[in-house]
Amino acid sequence: MKTRLILASASPRRKELLEQMGVEFEILPAVKEEIITSAIPSKVVLELSSQKAMEVACTYQTKLPFQEAETTVVIGSDTVVAFENQILGKPKDDADAKRMLSLLAGKTHSVFTGVTLLICQNGEQRMHSFYEETKVTMYPMSELELEAYVATKEPMGKAGAYAIQGKCGIYIQKIVGEYNTVVGFPIARIYQEMKNLNIEIL
Amino acid sequence: MKTRLILASASPRRKELLEQMGVEFEILPAVKEEIITSAIPSKVVLELSSQKAMEVACTYQTKLPFQEAETTVVIGSDTVVAFENQILGKPKDDADAKRMLSLLAGKTHSVFTGVTLLICQNGEQRMHSFYEETKVTMYPMSELELEAYVATKEPMGKAGAYAIQGKCGIYIQKIVGEYNTVVGFPIARIYQEMKNLNIEIL
Repeated sequence: MKTRLILASASPRRKELLEQMGVEFEILPAVKEEIITSAIPSKVVLELSSQKAMEVACTYQTKLPFQEAETTVVIGSDTVVAFENQILGKPKDDADAKRMLSLLAGKTHSVFTGVTLLICQNGEQRMHSFYEETKVTMYPMSELELEAYVATKEPMGKAGAYAIQGKCGIYIQKIVGEYNTVVGFPIARIYQEMKNLNIEIL
Repeated sequence: MKTRLILASASPRRKELLEQMGVEFEILPAVKEEIITSAIPSKVVLELSSQKAMEVACTYQTKLPFQEAETTVVIGSDTVVAFENQILGKPKDDADAKRMLSLLAGKTHSVFTGVTLLICQNGEQRMHSFYEETKVTMYPMSELELEAYVATKEPMGKAGAYAIQGKCGIYIQKIVGEYNTVVGFPIARIYQEMKNLNIEIL
């Protein structure tokens, strides 16, 4: 039986990654303000990914009724960058983006992405959450390079103020982990988890 | 002074990566049969990348004359996959692709990409070659998964018979190194090397 997939995110990168997987899905983004209650990156992304999945499952259940006969999986996800006990979310403005990039340049940081699969099957709901950590080492950036990169506006809306798949690619020396954890979410881990849960998506 | 960049490769991935860097360039692909004379992956990719850069610099010098006043950089590149003392190039056919993927699935292999920068400046030529190695760990693949992936035809024309940025992404558990070494060539390393050589491209 085919599974109905709902992506609870407005991120264009996550949309592209699901398309890359070759699956069919709908997008119903979570819109509520996220509430961080922990200083531990893995806990934060697990919590926020489950909040997003729950919100979308509840809010849209009336708009888009789950059909008893099919399995629906809502995918919630959240990403943060962690560097020396600091959690970096999305930058507020250009100055904040430059501050974050100055911290990260020439060093190694971690990107945490949490994923929650909210599985609605036979009238019941199950929740399955996991996260991936990918370490990212950046080349040093000069003052000019920092300013030129911030001026591209690419940092806005991105955790840690950079896009590994964009113009920041020339500063990424090395990663350890799944690349897509940094881009949007870890599609290999998501596919493997779904396989283990007997959720057919391909 | 602006640098004229020539990509000596017909690879659409390398073209996209240069576009991602935001540089202007022309494409003049090397067409000669590559001759592998070593069993050491790093030597093979260095040698083939320099063969390609040399070929393009020589062949096209008449068609597209280098102007004395400008700096021209020809970029040659080659990628191979190495697994347990075997070098895997591009698969010959579907059966060969399946054979390669069966070797790699559930294991860790290395991707080597060599890059040669052939710099034509003030009537002189200099050659600068380097390589990057990225380790790739793949999830196991079932017989069905192997066959489904080969049937997408994506393996054809790809070293090691897979595209990390394509439908094989769901089987890539982890990498260690620069991601783009596996996709096409290491744009961060290329940018840094050019910077060290005082070649302005941005």
